[in-house]
Amino acid sequence: MLIVGELINTSRKAIKEAVANSDENYIRDIAKKQAEAGAHYIDVNCGTMVDNEPEVMGWLVKLVRDVVDVPLCIDSPSPVALAAGLELAAKGQPMINSITAEKERYSAVLPLVLKYKAKVVALCMDDTGMPDTAEQRIDIVRKLVADLTAAGVPEEDIYFDPLVKPVSTGDQAGMEVLETLRFIKGEYPKVHNICGLSNIGFGLPNRKVLNQVFMIQTMTAGMDSYIMDPLDKTMMGFLYASMALLGKDPYCVNYLKVHRQGLYQG
Amino acid sequence: MLIVGELINTSRKAIKEAVANSDENYIRDIAKKQAEAGAHYIDVNCGTMVDNEPEVMGWLVKLVRDVVDVPLCIDSPSPVALAAGLELAAKGQPMINSITAEKERYSAVLPLVLKYKAKVVALCMDDTGMPDTAEQRIDIVRKLVADLTAAGVPEEDIYFDPLVKPVSTGDQAGMEVLETLRFIKGEYPKVHNICGLSNIGFGLPNRKVLNQVFMIQTMTAGMDSYIMDPLDKTMMGFLYASMALLGKDPYCVNYLKVHRQGLYQG
Repeated sequence: MLIVGELINTSRKAIKEAVANSDENYIRDIAKKQAEAGAHYIDVNCGTMVDNEPEVMGWLVKLVRDVVDVPLCIDSPSPVALAAGLELAAKGQPMINSITAEKERYSAVLPLVLKYKAKVVALCMDDTGMPDTAEQRIDIVRKLVADLTAAGVPEEDIYFDPLVKPVSTGDQAGMEVLETLRFIKGEYPKVHNICGLSNIGFGLPNRKVLNQVFMIQTMTAGMDSYIMDPLDKTMMGFLYASMALLGKDPYCVNYLKVHRQGLYQG
Repeated sequence: MLIVGELINTSRKAIKEAVANSDENYIRDIAKKQAEAGAHYIDVNCGTMVDNEPEVMGWLVKLVRDVVDVPLCIDSPSPVALAAGLELAAKGQPMINSITAEKERYSAVLPLVLKYKAKVVALCMDDTGMPDTAEQRIDIVRKLVADLTAAGVPEEDIYFDPLVKPVSTGDQAGMEVLETLRFIKGEYPKVHNICGLSNIGFGLPNRKVLNQVFMIQTMTAGMDSYIMDPLDKTMMGFLYASMALLGKDPYCVNYLKVHRQGLYQG
């Protein structure tokens, strides 16, 4: 299981303010807290800073780098911002978030993946837009696996994000994702899957419950990475419980450890 | 989704006391509450009353019958107690809990299944004992489906209980169950699956969390019935959320309804 800590994102009010106020300590602190809570990667996203994204990216990456040893996930649709972040990311194997099957974006991001021997989040998306069905996602997966591995990216460095749509926009939105995961796990056992957890419940009440349930459902179908809030103790508790019950935590060692550390509220 | 309310069971202290004190109102009340909370069947189990199980079974069934219209799940390893309960169960199609592939038990329970045209819980168990692996369970499933349907029991009246062992006794205990469910769903799409939810976490802390997670995992793998406490709002909340995300609740109608009724605490 790979956990990417999602909290350093300028679409979050607290981060936007910290950037506006050059509050270095706030950024350092939130980076440290995420690593301590078990994040394997720290995501850095300042996509809302349209005027100076590369500059802010560099500033954020340096601050995170000051205080944690875990590698970074450089998160932007802009190849220029990605390059600015990757140049300073240092330590460990960086992750690039994200490439797609859109021709222009693919060509611009691939050289960065190769240059930094990075892990790469590949969104199930191409020039025709965001897919609805599992079948459409699977077509994109096949194409991206073929292209990326032909270019020299190892299968185990590819993390597919099936792109989760809200179930309020279509009853089968969750099922299409689960079916995509089962396909990838069966066809490409070395390839990973990753997603965020806040979209599925959009427009419905009790979104937290829906997010928790969808994490457990996607883990059951083969998801092995999440972009999530590692400070959310309930969510992390469900993650460790789910690992234990899926037979991925021998002797429940991690489950018992996080219990002793007080991760579970219940 | 079929919910069997599990609360009328003399292994529970409150029920044991109600039986000892002939407290008819307590039994009626707990039956009514379960039906109101959404139970489709009310389980009646007095297996701990070794001296007079059939007599207590009859007493309990009559009390439940007084106050609810939902059908009953008559629950005993004893064919004599089953017969006593079934005779009084009346209304609707009863459920028998349970038959197994043990020769003696099979022969004794089958006539009751046929006589009452009952739904039947079939435990994955034979004369060699409780299975460990999915493979062993699947062998028993194949045999029971063949025998029961040959005897005239429709596939849609069979509810397999894979028998859940605690994950503390073996890392793969949960996975063996999930694999069994996927097999049954693929091979016999009309056959149902059912289980209880309190065994998986035995011997581990935060059992409630483990039970919740295992319900969601088993639903994802194809489980469509549970013997559970319908008064547990958190568990029922997860059940409805899980249905919605699995595409089994068109327009999230039930999810929204139980939300309005205050089912979710979150």
